[in-house]
Amino acid sequence: MKIILFCLLLCPFAYALDEVIEKKVFELPSYTTTSGTDIPVKIGYETYGKLNEDKSNVILITHFFSGTSHAAGKNALGEVGYWDAIIGPGKAVDTSKYFVISSDTLVNVNVYDKSTVTTGPATINPKTKKPYGLTFPVVTIRDFVQVQRKLLDSLGIKKIHAVMGASGGSIQAVDWSVAYPDDVEKVIAVIGPGFSTPPFGIALVNMWVAPIRLDPLWKNGNYDPKNQPRKGMIESLKLIILSSMQFDWAKSIGGGFAKGEKPNTKFSDRFHIEAVFEQIAENRIRHMDANSLIYTAKAMQTYDVEDQIKNTKAEYLFIPVASDIIFPPFLFQESAKKVGDRAEVFVLDTKGGHYDGITQIHLAAGPIKKFLD
Amino acid sequence: MKIILFCLLLCPFAYALDEVIEKKVFELPSYTTTSGTDIPVKIGYETYGKLNEDKSNVILITHFFSGTSHAAGKNALGEVGYWDAIIGPGKAVDTSKYFVISSDTLVNVNVYDKSTVTTGPATINPKTKKPYGLTFPVVTIRDFVQVQRKLLDSLGIKKIHAVMGASGGSIQAVDWSVAYPDDVEKVIAVIGPGFSTPPFGIALVNMWVAPIRLDPLWKNGNYDPKNQPRKGMIESLKLIILSSMQFDWAKSIGGGFAKGEKPNTKFSDRFHIEAVFEQIAENRIRHMDANSLIYTAKAMQTYDVEDQIKNTKAEYLFIPVASDIIFPPFLFQESAKKVGDRAEVFVLDTKGGHYDGITQIHLAAGPIKKFLD
Repeated sequence: MKIILFCLLLCPFAYALDEVIEKKVFELPSYTTTSGTDIPVKIGYETYGKLNEDKSNVILITHFFSGTSHAAGKNALGEVGYWDAIIGPGKAVDTSKYFVISSDTLVNVNVYDKSTVTTGPATINPKTKKPYGLTFPVVTIRDFVQVQRKLLDSLGIKKIHAVMGASGGSIQAVDWSVAYPDDVEKVIAVIGPGFSTPPFGIALVNMWVAPIRLDPLWKNGNYDPKNQPRKGMIESLKLIILSSMQFDWAKSIGGGFAKGEKPNTKFSDRFHIEAVFEQIAENRIRHMDANSLIYTAKAMQTYDVEDQIKNTKAEYLFIPVASDIIFPPFLFQESAKKVGDRAEVFVLDTKGGHYDGITQIHLAAGPIKKFLD
Repeated sequence: MKIILFCLLLCPFAYALDEVIEKKVFELPSYTTTSGTDIPVKIGYETYGKLNEDKSNVILITHFFSGTSHAAGKNALGEVGYWDAIIGPGKAVDTSKYFVISSDTLVNVNVYDKSTVTTGPATINPKTKKPYGLTFPVVTIRDFVQVQRKLLDSLGIKKIHAVMGASGGSIQAVDWSVAYPDDVEKVIAVIGPGFSTPPFGIALVNMWVAPIRLDPLWKNGNYDPKNQPRKGMIESLKLIILSSMQFDWAKSIGGGFAKGEKPNTKFSDRFHIEAVFEQIAENRIRHMDANSLIYTAKAMQTYDVEDQIKNTKAEYLFIPVASDIIFPPFLFQESAKKVGDRAEVFVLDTKGGHYDGITQIHLAAGPIKKFLD
């Protein structure tokens, strides 16, 4: 009896938890980039929920700078998706109602992550049998979006109910509504800049990847994949993390000296947070490719659709984080004014900075559900 | 008549403007650092106003990370001091009343600035006749303060009416009240952390100098002074500037592409702000020394006098900037609580970020004058 009751209550969840999310692959023999180069393209994607008969229940999830398509559920590696708090059966993005597609982008930085599939500078150029490196064409947010459109085409999907993403993903989401104004009903943009990357964002992202260019092992992009500019990548990731996680995160790590080290008397000794920080960054770069970090940065910097806002037709839900120093809330507030009553803003009033748009997204579950349904 | 009236009204100012501020030099044949090393020391300083007979009208100005002792007036190079808006005859820090001393710190980064005098890793070690490089001892904020104390001793000054500084200078100012609780009446701390550098600050300052360590020309500190790690220094200064000047500054530079460049199609091409930013940083490093940047960073990181607050006796005026992302106002607000009614906080409610503590200081002239007088 107890077991039956247990199962009646919990089996739907247990089922959801146990189902392993599979990575699917979309291939295009030839894609012409916005910069005018033809390349074969392959990207990974995940789906949650079921496509309905008239294909009208589609929600597309676009990922952030260092993210992947693994947005929800548990994958084969046992990892839980970054927005699992709001995507699933009965959740804000209800997969018992919606068919959710989450796609890897071009030039995804997590090239060596087993569950990420992407095409970028680390990809083998079929013509030379070597990695493209810096011969890979510059790609823009619009390229990310156009490849996603081809993926949806391949599934027979013409219209989407909503596109949603955080940070760099919010940029793609908004760009979808600009590129295909007739085919996107709703956009949920979380911790993003709105309709263009502001100069501060362009400069910040430049700083994020500057350490890679300084590392002598980068070799102007022609490094051996087995001998990447790791030191530069570590500094790059440290800066990305510090910009995104901000004050309280650093506080949670704490002050003082690294164990057994005395930075106040010895030049090479470190502070506690320096040691921990380095370790965290080192773990983060394990699956990353240096050139792809620079290409992704460039894509983020190119984003500017201010002149095309007038063509949009979608409804927007903008969700900034109050303490975000990368994309402060006033950016979304100004963006909302530009599309009048088609936009609403819900501020996540948390103290953890930019990355709260990922980790604290459950606090916006109500407004998201209401906006979607 | 017109000329006489003109002169009556403006001559005091004209006099103040025309007087060239002279750089003086203080030398100590031997100073023992907090890390236990004896070194000969030389630092520059400027004075404004006149010391009164009982030497009771002294105000000490301590400079910020990339600053120098040139706080007011015009120097021989024609440069106006960074806090000239509040220091001078009739100004908030009234030099017709106070004798103001502004001192260069140890390991000042502006080694090759003709009006800065400092001792640090770029100094010639008298024993080896070569620059100290990384054999220079690690120095802390307390070392900065102790050397300033010796400078005041040399002038016969025992007590100071007030110490004031911005950012790294605010750290020195507060540390004065901890090191010499009986000799400091008042402290004005602008855009600082309070009684310790928080973990976020330690990590941020680590990021500031990381690019230098990555530059192969750094050579673990053993570079030829004529062949400094310039690329690393430029990235370092870019990050310092971006952290300090923030959003509105970037906006004032503007978006878009660099002239004649197309970063959306060509990998090596740049955005407008990237090009301008690089130029600004390149100008800033001209007088700087790479190792000194790292040593100054370390000094800032070591600051923690939380355990010694109870010994302080001074009154504090804390002036944060509302939009500062390096040292957000809550730090000073929390610091103020720790010293009860000996502290007051005046928030500069401006949008320009950290550096407004330098450029917008005139907005705090009233509270500063009231606090001092």
